[in-house]
Amino acid sequence: MSFVVFINGLTLVFFAALMAVDALVFPDTAEVFGLAAALTGLAGALISIAATPSRDGLRHLHAFVLTASTWFVAAVAGAIPLWMWQLAPVDALFEAMSGITTTGSTVMSGLDQTPRGVILWRALLQAVGGVGFIVTGIALLPILRIGGMQLFRTESSDKGEKEMRNAASFAMATLEIYVTLILVCAVVYLVGGMSVFDAITHAMTTLSTGGYSGYDASFGHFDSAFLHWACTFFMLAGAVPFAWYIRGVSQRRFRSEQVEAMLITLTVTILFLSAWLVLTSDYGVWDALRLVAFNVVSVVTTTGYATTDYTAWGPPAAVAFFALTAVGGCTGSTAGGAKGMRWIVFARATLMQLRVIWSPHVVQSIRYEGKPIGPDVLAGVISFFAIYMATFLGLAGILSLLGLDFSTATSGALTALANVGPGVGATIGPAGNFATLSDTVKLLLLFGMYLGRLEILTVMVLLTPVFWREATA
Amino acid sequence: MSFVVFINGLTLVFFAALMAVDALVFPDTAEVFGLAAALTGLAGALISIAATPSRDGLRHLHAFVLTASTWFVAAVAGAIPLWMWQLAPVDALFEAMSGITTTGSTVMSGLDQTPRGVILWRALLQAVGGVGFIVTGIALLPILRIGGMQLFRTESSDKGEKEMRNAASFAMATLEIYVTLILVCAVVYLVGGMSVFDAITHAMTTLSTGGYSGYDASFGHFDSAFLHWACTFFMLAGAVPFAWYIRGVSQRRFRSEQVEAMLITLTVTILFLSAWLVLTSDYGVWDALRLVAFNVVSVVTTTGYATTDYTAWGPPAAVAFFALTAVGGCTGSTAGGAKGMRWIVFARATLMQLRVIWSPHVVQSIRYEGKPIGPDVLAGVISFFAIYMATFLGLAGILSLLGLDFSTATSGALTALANVGPGVGATIGPAGNFATLSDTVKLLLLFGMYLGRLEILTVMVLLTPVFWREATA
Repeated sequence: MSFVVFINGLTLVFFAALMAVDALVFPDTAEVFGLAAALTGLAGALISIAATPSRDGLRHLHAFVLTASTWFVAAVAGAIPLWMWQLAPVDALFEAMSGITTTGSTVMSGLDQTPRGVILWRALLQAVGGVGFIVTGIALLPILRIGGMQLFRTESSDKGEKEMRNAASFAMATLEIYVTLILVCAVVYLVGGMSVFDAITHAMTTLSTGGYSGYDASFGHFDSAFLHWACTFFMLAGAVPFAWYIRGVSQRRFRSEQVEAMLITLTVTILFLSAWLVLTSDYGVWDALRLVAFNVVSVVTTTGYATTDYTAWGPPAAVAFFALTAVGGCTGSTAGGAKGMRWIVFARATLMQLRVIWSPHVVQSIRYEGKPIGPDVLAGVISFFAIYMATFLGLAGILSLLGLDFSTATSGALTALANVGPGVGATIGPAGNFATLSDTVKLLLLFGMYLGRLEILTVMVLLTPVFWREATA
Repeated sequence: MSFVVFINGLTLVFFAALMAVDALVFPDTAEVFGLAAALTGLAGALISIAATPSRDGLRHLHAFVLTASTWFVAAVAGAIPLWMWQLAPVDALFEAMSGITTTGSTVMSGLDQTPRGVILWRALLQAVGGVGFIVTGIALLPILRIGGMQLFRTESSDKGEKEMRNAASFAMATLEIYVTLILVCAVVYLVGGMSVFDAITHAMTTLSTGGYSGYDASFGHFDSAFLHWACTFFMLAGAVPFAWYIRGVSQRRFRSEQVEAMLITLTVTILFLSAWLVLTSDYGVWDALRLVAFNVVSVVTTTGYATTDYTAWGPPAAVAFFALTAVGGCTGSTAGGAKGMRWIVFARATLMQLRVIWSPHVVQSIRYEGKPIGPDVLAGVISFFAIYMATFLGLAGILSLLGLDFSTATSGALTALANVGPGVGATIGPAGNFATLSDTVKLLLLFGMYLGRLEILTVMVLLTPVFWREATA
């Protein structure tokens, strides 16, 4: 276990370095971020030195502890400067967890007047969280066999796909693509009229599908059709599997069932909702298309920016956005939710079942991206949905017991678990804010974000006593 | 297919006989029911005679058509006297479908002043629908392999369990127990102070877990703690698998995982909600326990009686009752919903999965009532949940597009699919009524009840073109 402690120490040191950068860029908040950097860095260094980094002791079970603890330590590190600045401890942890998990729910208001050092910090948390999740999703979850993710295990040894030969080179390639996309996005935002600061911070929170903005009006602050469409495009770019870019660059192969399924789902939903909006409101066709496309893509990619209060469009929009919250982006991207691979496997298993009902002797075989799916992956995917639903219902139930109304409790639980950001209803809807919720509710929601980001099972395994008996044996 | 038509003709004749009974008992509405009986009986007889009842032509695929068409014809037959009496066509079909599927949602108000012949008719529909579903669930769905129901196929040939040797003797035994329970319940209601008519009709709608009452205040019309507890007991009696009674009588074996799981779930829920109600309201402990037990049992057994507007207890109660709507009673009873067997298999598959995640080499084996579950049953159960969820979301989405608010659309879709009765919200909650909804919404909801009663897949298979190609080949 000492290796786990060592890595957690290094995580603190890494975040201390980020705080130092923030302190150097913005003199206004340099004192807070400098002090936070010193404290966090010192604590991290001491912890790392105290733990003997013997890698021999790392066993399969320890990988669960490593993953779960690192993400939690990252959230705590992210909260330190926010708390030292002026947020209450629970608010600071909520904001940092929401950032690092790229959820984007916020308890802060008056963002337009908030020091830019703090706004930069929120963007940095999401940028780091986004790439952190891609690496976790591709390198760790498959090893941990979380919810069918073992499907992605064999890819490295399969059919000579060299791009995934080892996790380290994959992580580097991911980082390169990620940084490149953020830079391209920032340039496009600059061209669209944003300031340098806005362009960089919004590019970070766009590609990480995080959704933090430096303005209370979220992306709606920018009254430009060009910027809205650009953001729509780059949110999509963040929700596409990063392995797809790597393969596309190295092999010129761009076919991907996940990407195609996501684009088809989005197109149908956007056309349908736009048509409905044109018929029931005063919006013209192009405005409706832009508003719907932006907000649908924002929710499906689990970014959580808003350009307008779409729940005010009426009950059908509220229900549609509620349902979209559960969809999520592609597996292997920065997006949250149940994610593409699982939906595809789930849908195919279901269709196959319909066929089997009236032709019992048909041979069952489900494929994904051309490869047959083993029963362990199928069972993993299905259990994932079961546990996801149970966690959602449990969290929604507890939230409502704490006095939240029906829409707030259910959509709050879902938006946290799926790492989307806004919920439905006046309090936590796209025009609302999580600030007015009680500390207990905030703690539950931030735990929901944490659970959702680690695909629930990673954390749940740690809660079983048998696990600890085996891990410490 | 002529056998299918023949059986549908007989179904009409059977309902004509029921109408005749109603006409003989209540002179006030004898004209309406007599005329309806004559017309329905004539139509049924002509159809039966016209169809050559050659059983040779009955193939596996035809069993789907038989099941789906008989239930639809039964609803139409049930609607005829209601329509001839004074309901609009859509209202009559809604009321009859809600009756025959033992849902219990109503479009009628002023029930206290409604002719007793009509009230008797609604009770008869539920009584017939209840026993019809037990027989469908035990005799037909296993053959059709609907949602893992093939699990119950082998029971007849397995380990000498003689009670299920053939469907006909099982159906007779079921009918005996069902009628006996209704009579016992009626006597208990009489002892509790009900009139003979109230006791008989309410016994019918209690044991069928239907929930139609002769009063606008539903079971709350009877202000008697004794009657409330009696009804709670007999609703439970209707939601227990009827094979359990048969086995209990013949073999003195009363262990049943389904029954135990249901009782544990109910006990925990009732204690929890009662404690909460005592803490947040003026109710005393016993009143709270009685109110909570009655209404929780009513929703879980999918009866749908109400003694009070429990949604007025606050958001936690609304969320709890919404979640309970999805639970359902036991497989092999009159109850609707996802039902016990499926929840148990689903839960075990999920727990097994958690174990497999960190011990990949553990041998997977899921048991139900002591017997191992095959992969086909597991796949069937899981697909059932997937299709159930998709149907629920689709129906809720369409309902909201038609202008219903969030709670009404989602709880309306769920209460119809699960054959419960009341939803959440002012319109269709326990104190509300479905009358004010538009005809389109009513048609969608009655189709939802039909889908839910036939466990969706029976109907969905009929919608695939490939099915018809094979069925007519």
